[in-house]
Amino acid sequence: MLRIAVLVSGGGTNLQAIIDGVEQGKITNTEICCVISNNPGAYALKRAEKHKIEGVCISPADYRTREEFHDALLNKLLDLQVDLIVLAGCLVVIPPSIVRAFPGKIINVHPALIPSFCGTGYYGLKVHEAVLKRGVKVTGATVHFVDEGTDTGPIILQKAVEVEDDDTPEILQKRVMEQAEWVIMPRAIDLIANDRLVIADGVVKQKK
Amino acid sequence: MLRIAVLVSGGGTNLQAIIDGVEQGKITNTEICCVISNNPGAYALKRAEKHKIEGVCISPADYRTREEFHDALLNKLLDLQVDLIVLAGCLVVIPPSIVRAFPGKIINVHPALIPSFCGTGYYGLKVHEAVLKRGVKVTGATVHFVDEGTDTGPIILQKAVEVEDDDTPEILQKRVMEQAEWVIMPRAIDLIANDRLVIADGVVKQKK
Repeated sequence: MLRIAVLVSGGGTNLQAIIDGVEQGKITNTEICCVISNNPGAYALKRAEKHKIEGVCISPADYRTREEFHDALLNKLLDLQVDLIVLAGCLVVIPPSIVRAFPGKIINVHPALIPSFCGTGYYGLKVHEAVLKRGVKVTGATVHFVDEGTDTGPIILQKAVEVEDDDTPEILQKRVMEQAEWVIMPRAIDLIANDRLVIADGVVKQKK
Repeated sequence: MLRIAVLVSGGGTNLQAIIDGVEQGKITNTEICCVISNNPGAYALKRAEKHKIEGVCISPADYRTREEFHDALLNKLLDLQVDLIVLAGCLVVIPPSIVRAFPGKIINVHPALIPSFCGTGYYGLKVHEAVLKRGVKVTGATVHFVDEGTDTGPIILQKAVEVEDDDTPEILQKRVMEQAEWVIMPRAIDLIANDRLVIADGVVKQKK
C-alpha cells in the first residue's frame, strides 16, 4: 500500500477527488494516512474528519520562524513514514529540506499546461487571470513531480481545457478543476501506487 | 472577397489545407491570390500551379541585402493588394516594415500552444524537440495575428494534441499538423473572411 499525505490550504476539492478515487476503487493500493493543512480553517480538514482520515494543521502562525515551521512539517511527514506527498491546492512553498528528504516522492497539481503560466507568482486564481489576459484559447492542468525549482519537475500527466469567450477567472478555474485537476491527480496517484512510471532524463513515461 | 497571399517555405501542407478549405467551401468569401515562397524549390509552388494560383519565389539569395529582400517582398504584397497575409510554414522572419504596412492583417500558425515553446529559436522541428525534451504530455498549435514581436500577437485559435510516449519529433510534428494546424488555420481564415472576430486589449473573441 502506498501511504500518502495530502497537503492542502483551502476547500480541498482536489483532496475530495482523491478520497473519492480511493473509495470508488479508481485509485488502488493507496492509503491516505494524513491530511495536513497550513490553514486551521481549511474545509479540507472537515473532509478528512468526515472520512475518518487524520487531519492536522501545521500553520506558520504557530512558529517563530519559517525554519521552525518547515522543521515541524518535515518532522510530521517523517513520523508518518509516507511514501508520497501530494500537494493538492497547497499554497505553501515546499522548502528544499523537504524536497531533499523525499526525492521523487512529492507531486503537485498546477492549474495550467506547464511550461505555460507557471513559476513564481503563478498560483491559484492568478494563473487563470494571466490566461485570460493573454487571450489563450486552450489551458489545462498538470500533475508533476516536485523538484527544487518552481513547477520545473518531471511532468506526469496533463489535460487540456478550452477557454470560452465569456470566461471569468473564477469560471475558468472551476472548469479546469472539474475537467482536468480532479481527473489527472487521482490517475497520477494510481499510476505511482501501481509502479507504472519510469523517469529518464526528466521525462516521465508509462511502463508498457 | 478576402484576398489572401500565402507565404510558405517548404512542402506547403498547410497551404494545401487552405486550398482544400476554399475548394470545399469550408473557407468562404476568400480568394487565394498568390503563393509566395522564399525557396525556389518549395513544393508549395507546385501545389499553387496545380490549382492555377499565381506562385512566386522571392528569395533572399537574389538580393544583395536583407533590406532589399524585404523591400521586394513588401512591394509584391502591396502590388497584390491583399487583405490578409497568411504565414503557413513560412520560415522567413517578417520584418517590422511589413508588419507596419499590414497592421492586424498578418496571421501565422505556430506548432505549439503559445505561450509554451514559442519565441526566437522555436520553429519547425525544434519546437517538437523541445516539447519531447521537457516531457510535456499535451502540445498543439496556435493561429495568431502577427505583431512586431515573435509569437506575441493576439491568439485567434488553439487546438491541443496529445504527446505519446513513443513520439519522435517527426511523428509529433505530423500529428500536430494533421490534428491541429490543418484544422485551425482554415477555420481562422474563414472567421476573418466573414468578419467574425473582435480584438480588445490583445484578446481575440468571436462575435456572437
